[in-house]
Amino acid sequence: MIVIMKRGATGAQLTNVTARIEQSGYRVHLSEGEERTIIGVIGNGRPLDRDPIERMDGVERTVPILRPFKLASREFHPQDTVVKVNGVSIGGKQLVVMAGPCAVENCEQIMEAARAVKEAGGRVLRGGAYKPRTSPYSFQGLGEEGLRLLAQARDETGLPVVTEVIEPQLVPLVTTYADILQVGARNMQNYALLHAVGEAQRPVLLKRGMMSTIEELLMAAEYILSHGNERIILCERGIRTFEPYTRNTLDISAVPLLKQLSHLPVIVDPSHGTGKWELVEPVSRAAVAAGADGLIIEVHPRPEEALSDGGQSLKPARFAALMEGLRPVVEAVGRTL
Amino acid sequence: MIVIMKRGATGAQLTNVTARIEQSGYRVHLSEGEERTIIGVIGNGRPLDRDPIERMDGVERTVPILRPFKLASREFHPQDTVVKVNGVSIGGKQLVVMAGPCAVENCEQIMEAARAVKEAGGRVLRGGAYKPRTSPYSFQGLGEEGLRLLAQARDETGLPVVTEVIEPQLVPLVTTYADILQVGARNMQNYALLHAVGEAQRPVLLKRGMMSTIEELLMAAEYILSHGNERIILCERGIRTFEPYTRNTLDISAVPLLKQLSHLPVIVDPSHGTGKWELVEPVSRAAVAAGADGLIIEVHPRPEEALSDGGQSLKPARFAALMEGLRPVVEAVGRTL
Amino acid sequence: MIVIMKRGATGAQLTNVTARIEQSGYRVHLSEGEERTIIGVIGNGRPLDRDPIERMDGVERTVPILRPFKLASREFHPQDTVVKVNGVSIGGKQLVVMAGPCAVENCEQIMEAARAVKEAGGRVLRGGAYKPRTSPYSFQGLGEEGLRLLAQARDETGLPVVTEVIEPQLVPLVTTYADILQVGARNMQNYALLHAVGEAQRPVLLKRGMMSTIEELLMAAEYILSHGNERIILCERGIRTFEPYTRNTLDISAVPLLKQLSHLPVIVDPSHGTGKWELVEPVSRAAVAAGADGLIIEVHPRPEEALSDGGQSLKPARFAALMEGLRPVVEAVGRTL
Amino acid sequence: MIVIMKRGATGAQLTNVTARIEQSGYRVHLSEGEERTIIGVIGNGRPLDRDPIERMDGVERTVPILRPFKLASREFHPQDTVVKVNGVSIGGKQLVVMAGPCAVENCEQIMEAARAVKEAGGRVLRGGAYKPRTSPYSFQGLGEEGLRLLAQARDETGLPVVTEVIEPQLVPLVTTYADILQVGARNMQNYALLHAVGEAQRPVLLKRGMMSTIEELLMAAEYILSHGNERIILCERGIRTFEPYTRNTLDISAVPLLKQLSHLPVIVDPSHGTGKWELVEPVSRAAVAAGADGLIIEVHPRPEEALSDGGQSLKPARFAALMEGLRPVVEAVGRTL
Repeated sequence: MIVIMKRGATGAQLTNVTARIEQSGYRVHLSEGEERTIIGVIGNGRPLDRDPIERMDGVERTVPILRPFKLASREFHPQDTVVKVNGVSIGGKQLVVMAGPCAVENCEQIMEAARAVKEAGGRVLRGGAYKPRTSPYSFQGLGEEGLRLLAQARDETGLPVVTEVIEPQLVPLVTTYADILQVGARNMQNYALLHAVGEAQRPVLLKRGMMSTIEELLMAAEYILSHGNERIILCERGIRTFEPYTRNTLDISAVPLLKQLSHLPVIVDPSHGTGKWELVEPVSRAAVAAGADGLIIEVHPRPEEALSDGGQSLKPARFAALMEGLRPVVEAVGRTL
Repeated sequence: MIVIMKRGATGAQLTNVTARIEQSGYRVHLSEGEERTIIGVIGNGRPLDRDPIERMDGVERTVPILRPFKLASREFHPQDTVVKVNGVSIGGKQLVVMAGPCAVENCEQIMEAARAVKEAGGRVLRGGAYKPRTSPYSFQGLGEEGLRLLAQARDETGLPVVTEVIEPQLVPLVTTYADILQVGARNMQNYALLHAVGEAQRPVLLKRGMMSTIEELLMAAEYILSHGNERIILCERGIRTFEPYTRNTLDISAVPLLKQLSHLPVIVDPSHGTGKWELVEPVSRAAVAAGADGLIIEVHPRPEEALSDGGQSLKPARFAALMEGLRPVVEAVGRTL
Repeated sequence: MIVIMKRGATGAQLTNVTARIEQSGYRVHLSEGEERTIIGVIGNGRPLDRDPIERMDGVERTVPILRPFKLASREFHPQDTVVKVNGVSIGGKQLVVMAGPCAVENCEQIMEAARAVKEAGGRVLRGGAYKPRTSPYSFQGLGEEGLRLLAQARDETGLPVVTEVIEPQLVPLVTTYADILQVGARNMQNYALLHAVGEAQRPVLLKRGMMSTIEELLMAAEYILSHGNERIILCERGIRTFEPYTRNTLDISAVPLLKQLSHLPVIVDPSHGTGKWELVEPVSRAAVAAGADGLIIEVHPRPEEALSDGGQSLKPARFAALMEGLRPVVEAVGRTL
Repeated sequence: MIVIMKRGATGAQLTNVTARIEQSGYRVHLSEGEERTIIGVIGNGRPLDRDPIERMDGVERTVPILRPFKLASREFHPQDTVVKVNGVSIGGKQLVVMAGPCAVENCEQIMEAARAVKEAGGRVLRGGAYKPRTSPYSFQGLGEEGLRLLAQARDETGLPVVTEVIEPQLVPLVTTYADILQVGARNMQNYALLHAVGEAQRPVLLKRGMMSTIEELLMAAEYILSHGNERIILCERGIRTFEPYTRNTLDISAVPLLKQLSHLPVIVDPSHGTGKWELVEPVSRAAVAAGADGLIIEVHPRPEEALSDGGQSLKPARFAALMEGLRPVVEAVGRTL
């Protein structure tokens, strides 16, 4: 950390600040410019909390030098993490496509979707049993019945299942049925939930909050890692901006940035990222070209009858076409589908 | 809801859409323009889910007519709601200032803060026992010990206590100690938590998420209302924008807008809303002038020693000066302090 | 400026960077931490360009220490600047309300508006003769005829006139008629225009761009100042965010922040800042309470017939009521109306 | 347009609104719901101005049905526009890469850059002679001398030249030297400039403003088209968001969206879009995969000596490697390089 003193800060103020830093177990290094004094804080590996220092008399502001995440950083863990689940490897050479309906609605729907996903080359089945919905009057998911149907679809198709868990208490139940636990965008900073999945024996698909910076996403991963779970898949799913044509603005640069900053695999959700099914195909190709390790796509046998997010779901035939169109791009970046 | 058909939509597509709407129990009203057909959906009071319709062939987009919230709306409940807690009325003529430290740190700190708040004219004591922190390595609060200290401060000063609850399981415990349950910005769409506080026997202070729209805030209130708890206080605390000088951008227009759209009381948090103690005073005055029913302000006996958010906390003397400066503005808008 | 070297940067890289800095006439001050070397750049008063340094091998990033604006800063010019125009002082004790229609439409309309503004206590008449409109098919203003009508309204009422200038070539013409030149939000970074008004003999009302930071606003002021014009009035008029209920999000914190960082007067535009006439009154009160030196408000004799921005204009009676309601707040903060 | 009346609007209010609409030459179509009356405005092809209607008593809000752009729309002009300049076709099968330094600095630099661009397969040379810079103290470009050097580089390499024009008065001069006129992001709503390039005899590269919606970009194109110039190339270059790691957030969905909504070619600027040279390569591949017709990339022989934007410029060797890596992706989407 660097501390920038105010122009005209007194010697006594400077002494107080350096004393405070040294009491916390750090060394200081002074640099006196013509207008301001700068204090370098030389550390013991872990960043000093900036807030209290920033509040001291004579301090203008502080500047962090070290990234606040450690276990999630590539500096700390240079090799790529590959998350393995039921024979599928996420973060390796193969691009992994996860697909399925937004919400599990009934047996026929999820079975039909699962077969379509499998047939087109998808590797993981997605489907929500617990749905966080903006309105209390909207369909909230089938709950445990939905989990049971997902497990049934896995048994038939062999596809591992990813599904969202929305509160800490549900982690044990969802773990019984699901292969990957999803933490949704609205819960990216639900620390009680991060704690709970950090102790679970399942890989975690961690979605970026629609209001979260890349650093905050990596700090959320750090929570999970610090509780012992190293099998985390990061997911870029669009951030909120002023642009109204799309539901969110998919931050494509986040893909190579996350791969540089972290060792964790990164996938992209073009369905929520755009909110429009017509955009899912081109944005999927872009994500692969930018270096994503996988995709998570909404597929519904009859989107016009979907109980949630129908507008961004693909029909099975369209999904199969997407997979076909994806293949040359996957190969162009040296991967397999 | 209005459905806008695509230019060139076929008669069969139109028939399908109208059939689907009528099957859901609504009536349709067609309006054929020169370029497009528009379908008015005439309702049974509750909005039809737009997503599935939007996904049908021939549909360009849909437009909502009714607001999606009902119990929270002023249309439904024209009189102002006044939330009463231990002799303090929030939403009435008196402006209610809640103040205290970001986190409860120890007995001496919270007692000192509570006395300072009381003496300067604050009506409610705030303090966090469970802290949602971006980093897993930051101070996370004292937990139940913090709740106990808050209750002790209330017993001494008579100030009712507001404190944050961060997961559904903790609601019963926090309810034992606190007078008002706070749902923090990061949890505004934690629906399991909204459900739990909706069933609690305590008023709820609901903070706007940092990237949540006003409509989403009212939908979160609707969750709580629909579970039976009508004692909700809305809180504007700044939204996330591109401006880096301040921690958040306080949305001052949200105050009169929320008062127009809803009957619930509205308070403002200038400490989180700006992130800089120098801005707390002018922004507090602005909030009162805009029609806020109250303020929630961070006060710490020694901000430079605070374990969290020291940079936005006021010292007791500064807080007393703020209260003094607030008085003429409070009176100018016809209220009391 | 501070230069943060990468972890593991070589001695040769360090030597290159320091050599480059010294060649540019600055001194360096090294600080070697356990993980990284930090270089303090000690200056000659003017900031070194960060971009080229940031691109050198071994450099992780650079951090600015000095603010990039100088002439606009309060450090450089501690006293408040008061802009005087035809007997009106902006930035002094009196709160100055500028009001009038978005666009000048015809003689009757501008005369009627001017009289209403004068009668209610407004001090400056606003009105657009050249209108930047999103659509090429919308009304673009009356041009010079509009300027003539504004001058006529000034002659009758004695109110000085502020009007927008949208290209450098028009500055001489607009200067002939107007008392204050307005640079609109869309032109805040139109440097050719800033240059031209910087050389004009008229005060400049500089509006913040809808996606411009406070620092960028002050840099735009720096352009004008550096061309010799010191009579600048800054205007907060709302920034673009994700919130759809209001046209923009008025950044109330910008008012005290600009007053801290700069010596220039600051006014607020609640009409564009909210886009809704119902919000103009409470937001005007908030702006005054936050410390604004003035307001600029849209008033139209018949908003429902306005050729632009009718939705945010006040009728004369409503404007008079606003002025009446403003008075106690103005006095509460120790100013006059 | 649709007009939504307020709940409880009176018959007289409804009559006034419909009368006003009919006076403007439109027909009305009433739809009475249980709670509100909706008025469909049936048109004469051109949208009615919504503002005045929205301000009438009894009106809650209005909803546009038609897109406000026409000449720029694919509905109006279904075939792709291909912009031809000196033998290069933009918007056809070939992906067109434009490259060169941010600013022309001297003869050696631009010649070296031009040769490197040509050799690696670039088709158009970019370089700024007039630079809009945030600070008045930064290098502002060589002006006409820069234009002369660009023309010299074209003469030697055969590459057509694109360069920015920053004010209407400079259009004739820049037209003398340049093959494509660039309108920069900060000038996207500089209507005097749009007017001037709309009358110029050169193709226009129109960059999206960092604060502009897709609709506003197309409205800016509409300005140019409505003044007679049909040779427009749209450019996505990142929008401003809350994410601080990157300079802007490149909106990848804008590429397929613009191709759907409009017939104009679309290119992407990954250099400004990310602000980091390490991200230029993966984001370039993503842009091609999403369907972009071209790229515009900053290349500088010695970025560490660049007078502007060095941090996002590629060295020639790196640019050549980017072109090589791009080829398989270009072919995967059925295009040529």
